[in-house]
Amino acid sequence: MALYVQKFGGTSVGSVERIKKVAERVGRFRKEGHDVVVVVSAMSGETNRLLALAQDIHDNPSPRELDMLISTGEQVTIALLAMAMEQQGIPATSYTGAQVGIVTDKSYNKARIKKIDTESVKNDLNKGRVVVVAGFQGVDEEGNITTLGRGGSDTTAVALAAALKADECQIYTDVDGVYTADPRICSKARRLDKITVEEMLELASLGSKILQIRSVEFAGKYQVPLRVLSSFEDSEGEGTLIIADNEEHNAMEDPLISGIAHHTNEAKITILGAPDIPGVAAKILGPISDANIEVDMIVQNVSPDGESTDFSFTVGRGDYKKAYSLVEKCVEEMGAGRILGDNAMAKVSLVGVGMRSHAGVASLMFKTLAENSINIRMVSTSEIKISVVIDEKFTELAVRTLHTAFGLDKPE
Amino acid sequence: MALYVQKFGGTSVGSVERIKKVAERVGRFRKEGHDVVVVVSAMSGETNRLLALAQDIHDNPSPRELDMLISTGEQVTIALLAMAMEQQGIPATSYTGAQVGIVTDKSYNKARIKKIDTESVKNDLNKGRVVVVAGFQGVDEEGNITTLGRGGSDTTAVALAAALKADECQIYTDVDGVYTADPRICSKARRLDKITVEEMLELASLGSKILQIRSVEFAGKYQVPLRVLSSFEDSEGEGTLIIADNEEHNAMEDPLISGIAHHTNEAKITILGAPDIPGVAAKILGPISDANIEVDMIVQNVSPDGESTDFSFTVGRGDYKKAYSLVEKCVEEMGAGRILGDNAMAKVSLVGVGMRSHAGVASLMFKTLAENSINIRMVSTSEIKISVVIDEKFTELAVRTLHTAFGLDKPE
Repeated sequence: MALYVQKFGGTSVGSVERIKKVAERVGRFRKEGHDVVVVVSAMSGETNRLLALAQDIHDNPSPRELDMLISTGEQVTIALLAMAMEQQGIPATSYTGAQVGIVTDKSYNKARIKKIDTESVKNDLNKGRVVVVAGFQGVDEEGNITTLGRGGSDTTAVALAAALKADECQIYTDVDGVYTADPRICSKARRLDKITVEEMLELASLGSKILQIRSVEFAGKYQVPLRVLSSFEDSEGEGTLIIADNEEHNAMEDPLISGIAHHTNEAKITILGAPDIPGVAAKILGPISDANIEVDMIVQNVSPDGESTDFSFTVGRGDYKKAYSLVEKCVEEMGAGRILGDNAMAKVSLVGVGMRSHAGVASLMFKTLAENSINIRMVSTSEIKISVVIDEKFTELAVRTLHTAFGLDKPE
Repeated sequence: MALYVQKFGGTSVGSVERIKKVAERVGRFRKEGHDVVVVVSAMSGETNRLLALAQDIHDNPSPRELDMLISTGEQVTIALLAMAMEQQGIPATSYTGAQVGIVTDKSYNKARIKKIDTESVKNDLNKGRVVVVAGFQGVDEEGNITTLGRGGSDTTAVALAAALKADECQIYTDVDGVYTADPRICSKARRLDKITVEEMLELASLGSKILQIRSVEFAGKYQVPLRVLSSFEDSEGEGTLIIADNEEHNAMEDPLISGIAHHTNEAKITILGAPDIPGVAAKILGPISDANIEVDMIVQNVSPDGESTDFSFTVGRGDYKKAYSLVEKCVEEMGAGRILGDNAMAKVSLVGVGMRSHAGVASLMFKTLAENSINIRMVSTSEIKISVVIDEKFTELAVRTLHTAFGLDKPE
C-alpha cells in the first residue's frame, strides 16, 4: 500500500459535478488501501472573480490583503471536496495552508515554502482518513496568509509529497502526460512513459506549460517521483512519470532525445559590429532588463573582421518594439554597430539527457532543417538541449521533420 | 479619543459600493482621531451561495467542513474592506477569527467564544491602523475553524469590545435604533435614546430582531456600552444606546415602560381539567420538546373545581398541528382533560425596568385592552415585562392604544 499525494487544478474542480468526479477517483485509490493526500486549487473562475472585486475597490491593493482574499478560493474547494468524499462514505478532513503548517517566507503573492509540519496529516492518515489540503497557500511565521504565486498548487503538492516521503506525487491536468512534441502540430507525437527532471525542466521552460518549473525543481531536489496524468480521461492512462536522473536512465539504449519543444511569438534583435570590449553585453542588455523585458536566448560571436562582435538576443514579440528602440539608443551612444530585427521568429528545441553522450545530435538537426530549406537564424545549446531560432512560418514543418528524423514517431 | 468597535452586517457590505461606503464611514471616525476595530459579516447572499454548493454535494455535510466553507464569506469581506480603507489612505489590516485569536469551544456551527487574544489588534491600533476582523468565526484549541451561529458577528463585535475594553460597541443595522413599538404598525413610535440591557433582552426575545440575544447578554455581562445605529441613513443619527442597568436609570423620572413588542403567528393550546399532580406539566411538554417544537409562554392555573389544573402554552403557528396531536395523545394516556386550541394568536408585551417600582402597569394595560374590546387569552409576567396573548386580528389596535396609554407617543 502506497502513499499518494494527488493534485487537481482549477478546471478539474471547476463545478460541483467535477468535484464529485474527483472524489470518486480519490475514493478508488483509498478503497484499494492506499493513503491519499489531495491538494486542490480554487474552482476555475473563482480567483478571477475575487480579483475583479479587488480591482473594483483598489487599483493596486495591498499584497497582504490580496492573499487574504484569494486564499478563500482554495478553502471553498477543500471543504466541498471533503464533503464529497464523506458523501461516498470515505472519511476526509480538509486543511487550509495555515492549518497544515505550510510555513512560507513573507513574500506575499509569490511566497516560498520554508517548512511543513506534517503531524496532523499523518495523524489523519493513520486513522484512515483522506486529507484534503488547500494548494497555493501558506502562512508566514507571524500567521499572515501568503500565496505561492502561479502554479503554486503544484508546488504545494510536491512539497507535501517530499515532507511526507510519499511514494508518488500525481499531478492531474487537462493533458494525459508529456508528449514528444505538441500533438496539435505533430500528429505522430507519442506520450512519454517517463522523462527526467532535467528534461522536464527544459521542456517546461521552452513552452510546454504542463507543470510549473518550481514544482519540477522541487521534485528533483527532494527526489519526489512526480507523475502527470489526465483528470478527465476515462481511460486510466499511466501518464508520464518524471524521475530524478539516474544511471539506469543514462544507459546507452536511451533515445537520443526525449522531446521537441517549440515556442512561437519570438522576436530577434541583432547588433552587428558592436565594439568587442568587456562590458558591451551588459551595456546592451542593461536597459532592456531595466525596462522589465524578459530576454530569452542570447548569442554572441566574433565578427568576421575580428575586431568587433555580433550580438543577438530574443524577446517576446510584444516587447519587440520597445526593445528595438532601447537598442537603437544604445547603438547611438556607442557610436558603432548596425541593428537587424525580425519579429516573426520561432524557437524549436530538442531536449534529452541522451544527447550528453552523443555528438551527432546537432549535425542531424541542422542537416534535417537544411533538407527542408529551413534557415537557422540562431543556435544555442546546453548539456541536454539544442535550440534553434527559425522563421516562424517553418515551425510546424521543423517540428514534424525533426520528430521523424530522431525516431520519435509513433510505431505504425 | 475613544476606541470603537463597529460592526457592519451582510447587507451593509453587500456590494463593492457599499463596502466603499463603510470604509468612508469608518474613515471619518479614524480621521477624528478615534481608534477603530471593524467587525464584518459575509457579503449578503454569499453564505447562501456557499450553502447551496454544499447542499449540491451532501444532504447533511459535516459541521466541521461546513464551517470551513462558510467562514470564507467573512474572509472575503475583511480583505475587500481593508483594501477600501487603504484606497482612502487609511492604513488597515484584516484578520480572520483564527488570526485575531478568537478561541471557541468545539461546537461547530454554534460555537461559543472562550477567549480572545488581543495582542495583535492592540499592536496595530498603536500604529494607527484600522483593524478589520471577520465576524461570526473563530478557531477551536486545535486550530479547526468554527462559526458562532446566527447573529455571530454581533457576538464577535461585543466580545472584542469587552476584551479591548472599548468605549463603545456600535452595531450598524438596517434600522436606526430601537423603537418604542414597531413603526410599521404604530406611526407614533419613537426611537429610544437609551434602553437597558434587560429591556433589550426582553425586546429581542419578543420579536424585535435588531440584535441577537447572545450579543446583548454578552454586553450586559461585560458592561460593554452597545449602540444600535443605521448603516444607511445619511443623517448621522445617534441610534439607541444599550446600557447596563444602573441607579441613574432606576430613578423615579424613568418612564413606566420603554417599549411595546409584539409577535404574531402564535398558536395557543390549552388542556382543561388535567390531573393536578406533580409532573403533569413535564408529561404534557416532554413529547413537545422531544419533537423539537419550541414552546414560548407557559401558564398553569388551578381549575375552578380545585382538583384539576388548566394548562396553556403557545407555540409557533407552523408547529401547531404537530403539537396539537402530541397533546391529544398525552390527554388520552392521562385519561383526563379536554383540549382547546387556537392558531390565530398574537403576543403583545410591555417592557420596562420602570415597572419594577410601579404596581399599576398591569391594571392600566388590562383596562386599556378592555376599553378596546380586546379579550386577553393568556397573561405572563416577569420583573420587567408583561405579556398578553390576544386574537391576532387585534394586534395593531392593541399596540397603538397601549402606546398612547403609556405615554410613549411622539410629542405632537
